[in-house]
Amino acid sequence: MINKLIKKIEQSKAPIVVGLDPMLSYIPDHVKEKAYQEKGETLAGAAQAIWEFNKAIVDATYDLIPAVKPQIAMYEQFGIEGLIAFKKTVDYCKEKDLVVIGDIKRGDIGSTSAAYATGHLGKVKVGGNTYCGFDEDFATINPYLGSDGVEPFIDVCKEEKKGLFILVKTSNPSSGEFQDQLIGGRPLYELVGEKVAEWGEKCMGDQYSYVGAVVGATYPEMGKILRKIMPKTYILVPGYGAQGGKGEDLVHYFNKDGLGLS
Amino acid sequence: MINKLIKKIEQSKAPIVVGLDPMLSYIPDHVKEKAYQEKGETLAGAAQAIWEFNKAIVDATYDLIPAVKPQIAMYEQFGIEGLIAFKKTVDYCKEKDLVVIGDIKRGDIGSTSAAYATGHLGKVKVGGNTYCGFDEDFATINPYLGSDGVEPFIDVCKEEKKGLFILVKTSNPSSGEFQDQLIGGRPLYELVGEKVAEWGEKCMGDQYSYVGAVVGATYPEMGKILRKIMPKTYILVPGYGAQGGKGEDLVHYFNKDGLGLS
Repeated sequence: MINKLIKKIEQSKAPIVVGLDPMLSYIPDHVKEKAYQEKGETLAGAAQAIWEFNKAIVDATYDLIPAVKPQIAMYEQFGIEGLIAFKKTVDYCKEKDLVVIGDIKRGDIGSTSAAYATGHLGKVKVGGNTYCGFDEDFATINPYLGSDGVEPFIDVCKEEKKGLFILVKTSNPSSGEFQDQLIGGRPLYELVGEKVAEWGEKCMGDQYSYVGAVVGATYPEMGKILRKIMPKTYILVPGYGAQGGKGEDLVHYFNKDGLGLS
Repeated sequence: MINKLIKKIEQSKAPIVVGLDPMLSYIPDHVKEKAYQEKGETLAGAAQAIWEFNKAIVDATYDLIPAVKPQIAMYEQFGIEGLIAFKKTVDYCKEKDLVVIGDIKRGDIGSTSAAYATGHLGKVKVGGNTYCGFDEDFATINPYLGSDGVEPFIDVCKEEKKGLFILVKTSNPSSGEFQDQLIGGRPLYELVGEKVAEWGEKCMGDQYSYVGAVVGATYPEMGKILRKIMPKTYILVPGYGAQGGKGEDLVHYFNKDGLGLS
């Protein structure tokens, strides 16, 4: 899937992922009104509005972009109905041959991480049948629990040829509280970056690993160092635009072949 | 809700939370067969088996225990159908007046954490109506993104009188990879513990804060130190039993009034 992502970025000449993080307040009134007429001012109505809005974005962009990144929290806030809209969005994007990065930031101990990996990237067995739960192509994950929380995701990625983006340095203002703490003179995020590179060695695509990293656009100097620590790691760079990251800041994140995802 | 939890622990004399983490392989064959007869060997069939199994556990224990902790990953692996079983389980446990700790380990940047907090602990507005998504009483959360990832959860807790358990030191073997790294001579988990105590000051119940901590039973010496760093923090102690934590190891986690949750 990392190979497909890179090929699609090369074809589209757009190292861009479109976020599908619908807030009801961003959705045009006429979309909401139509949905509420059909389903009422209910969770199902909100989910319908989100789905219609996403579909319009995808229809307008799918031939120009390589990938989308739905943020599951924005769906989960509407409970089951919201997650049905998430699943419909994932399925529709895959129909349109977009690479789908589930921004789920899951992470837990071994068997629990295995269950998340199964639900989002893998297949689950029920009696004699196997099913996909959500079936994204990539998932973002949280490294705080260490290797045995990450490896079950890598196992599923190997089997399914899917990928991960592991949080290394996040784009938010207080990300430094823990991530920047110095350990033997070096910040924690560098140590996490080294681990990501090490985990990534176990799961290589043609040029890049199936195991990528999340490094916020708001910290360009850190991006430069992390690029060196993780030479084969694809980097997902959130924080461009609304959060204050600038185009010129992104240059350090990308390898000399100019690929990357912002 | 922390007051209710403590009151229920005092009444039941059982500082125990029952995990509702159903693996299909643990569910008796006759429960699965009945569910598959009704719904087929499908995701809906698996969800039905999980729900029936949970209901039996809850019916057998609800008058003896204060709280349950459903692990959402075990439901999420079955996609939407699994999450419907999660929601049914949460609702049923609340009907039985159990305190429900959603073991969801969510965490993200500001507005995204706010969406998770809304979905699991709060209320969402759709037009003129408000709804609950999953509506647990407590949620476990991941601190890696720092204060601005945690505070939206605290805001919702204040409004709804609900609570959190924040990961400080987890019970898994490789938790030390990042959590034990020394920062100015002290491990990261102590720094996280201090932050949890600080966040907790903003949201106090009668004796304890609404903001609790997760500290694995498998590291009793660390529990002793963290108990001192976080004197008003209720501690959720997983890892007792199958993961190797022993009863005698738990003594350091509890305050002199003997309360706690294992």
